[in-house]
Amino acid sequence: MDDLYRSPLLPWLSPKGPEGDVVISSRVRLARDFDRMPFPDRADTNQLAAVKKTVSALLPAIEKSTGQVFDLVDMDSIPPMEREVLCVKHLASPSLIKQPEHRAVCISDDRCTSIMINEEDHLRIACMEAGLELERSLQRAFQIDDVLEARINMAFDEKLGYLTSWPTNLGTGLRASVVMHLPGLAFTDNISSIINISPQLGLSVNGLYTDGHQVIGNMFRVANRLTLGFTEEEIVSNMRDAVQEIVDQERRARKALELHDRLRLEDRVWRAYGEMRFARRMNSGDALALMSKLRLGVDLGIVDNLSAEFFSELLIVNREDYLKNLAGNEELPKEEIYQLRAEIVREALQRYALPQR
Amino acid sequence: MDDLYRSPLLPWLSPKGPEGDVVISSRVRLARDFDRMPFPDRADTNQLAAVKKTVSALLPAIEKSTGQVFDLVDMDSIPPMEREVLCVKHLASPSLIKQPEHRAVCISDDRCTSIMINEEDHLRIACMEAGLELERSLQRAFQIDDVLEARINMAFDEKLGYLTSWPTNLGTGLRASVVMHLPGLAFTDNISSIINISPQLGLSVNGLYTDGHQVIGNMFRVANRLTLGFTEEEIVSNMRDAVQEIVDQERRARKALELHDRLRLEDRVWRAYGEMRFARRMNSGDALALMSKLRLGVDLGIVDNLSAEFFSELLIVNREDYLKNLAGNEELPKEEIYQLRAEIVREALQRYALPQR
Repeated sequence: MDDLYRSPLLPWLSPKGPEGDVVISSRVRLARDFDRMPFPDRADTNQLAAVKKTVSALLPAIEKSTGQVFDLVDMDSIPPMEREVLCVKHLASPSLIKQPEHRAVCISDDRCTSIMINEEDHLRIACMEAGLELERSLQRAFQIDDVLEARINMAFDEKLGYLTSWPTNLGTGLRASVVMHLPGLAFTDNISSIINISPQLGLSVNGLYTDGHQVIGNMFRVANRLTLGFTEEEIVSNMRDAVQEIVDQERRARKALELHDRLRLEDRVWRAYGEMRFARRMNSGDALALMSKLRLGVDLGIVDNLSAEFFSELLIVNREDYLKNLAGNEELPKEEIYQLRAEIVREALQRYALPQR
Repeated sequence: MDDLYRSPLLPWLSPKGPEGDVVISSRVRLARDFDRMPFPDRADTNQLAAVKKTVSALLPAIEKSTGQVFDLVDMDSIPPMEREVLCVKHLASPSLIKQPEHRAVCISDDRCTSIMINEEDHLRIACMEAGLELERSLQRAFQIDDVLEARINMAFDEKLGYLTSWPTNLGTGLRASVVMHLPGLAFTDNISSIINISPQLGLSVNGLYTDGHQVIGNMFRVANRLTLGFTEEEIVSNMRDAVQEIVDQERRARKALELHDRLRLEDRVWRAYGEMRFARRMNSGDALALMSKLRLGVDLGIVDNLSAEFFSELLIVNREDYLKNLAGNEELPKEEIYQLRAEIVREALQRYALPQR
């Protein structure tokens, strides 16, 4: 497998998943807490150490059940920049690395599964897949949960279900989410209708990246709002249907753009390509906006000399913390970050070039 | 010589003139009117015809004196689109083509001299040169004027000088102007100081292209305000000095950009290149803004794989009327104009590419 800290590649960001032209990735996360043990923010050092020890001891059983090899990474054993890279790659969370002592994460060899230890809950099992694959993500999370629950008494109430550090996770402890790329709806000014209707569908829809006011890069995280009163399968199945509906709307919007505004669309796409090929300095929002336009062009066949994989790689590379680690300098000045980003974007477009038809 | 209506090339737009990195072109124009003959807007058909006939008959003498061959183009003998092309190329003026009957222009074979007949004055002699070459332009205009004045009685008053249809031309009938490219002053926000000081220098400074509010493309026309009270040589010499001062300021501004903002400058230049290489649709203002950035990059050696000649050609090609004539369709829809412009810009960048060092 690629180097965890130096490689930007993640299989679950591949454009080849189901509905991969619109759904970038699916993720299911289960929150679990040990019975009769304070939540991590109230647990003492011995208790945190005990939790970590118990889970570590179960890794061989998890590996046997999943057929995957896991790395156990102690947060206090790696430099701060590498912790940040794990956050950029969504294999760890900001909460996990805030106080690194006795915090750890088990990461599968394919980088699609992460089990965080002593995050807000004692355990957070997260399974990622490329495209719209919520059911498979849920299955994989259950596979790990089964191993753990067979050996650990989890905090569970007959009426409420799983007890978690935040009440929003009570019940199933489930958070299912997908990241969608919706440039068609954005360029046709139809994003707000999706966002407005989402609460009725039991969903939250939020811009993945914003500049504080506006969504940048046309990517949205769609997640369940309810964790209580439904089974995990019901939640995931309802969500899959709602996401599929948004996928269909996005495709209709793209068709409309192709039909009614083809020249302007091609111009946007190709200018984005031109800027990315030649830029010398690029901030993060600028990169996301350009990447979004170019990815749309690749998905629609307007640009046929580039693999959509460029997008998966740049989603990670674009992040400031990734670039700092790459340069080996935590204090890398802004201007040098901008310059490095532009260099890598230029280089990636050449590396992902396809032979011209 | 290239086709007058189909070729965008004009030697006086070449980047190779003196101070050609900042001064695009120089122009001297003399206004002359026949004595005891109403100005063209008050002259009757017979009078206009007589003026045209007299001047036409003197063309052989002008050719002999200048060593240039002249084409006499009757405005009512060419289609409206071709009249517009002559305006785009600054060889005719909108006033000349408004009422084409009995209006004509004599154009030298090198396209650097134009003698308009029955424009606002009976005669407008214009001589263009690449770069800062006002003296030579004046000499060439005098050469033609000498031939004409030896054979025609011009309206002249001992005290006022030449009498012209507009009082602003009284005296010398001279308008000297240069077109300057000032991206350095523009990007360092120093344009307004040039514009503010220009009246004290006896100059007018105006954006060559504006969108009604803002100057587009960082090109400015600098012209004399006074035509009375100085000799032609004094006017031209004063103006040359003032222009040289602006040239020096522009070069200092470019140096400052290179020194203090190199990365941002390179980024601007190369993104402009990228957009121009790949755009599919381009309006006129967009093209001018991109051309200006790229030309600056070529002049500063940031872009070393492109000849500055691209700029000279695109200055003409960019104009809507030129594109309509090229497409052979006076009613060419806006979207097709945008598309054609982008095609030609893309193609020009490839044609003017230099072998990479």
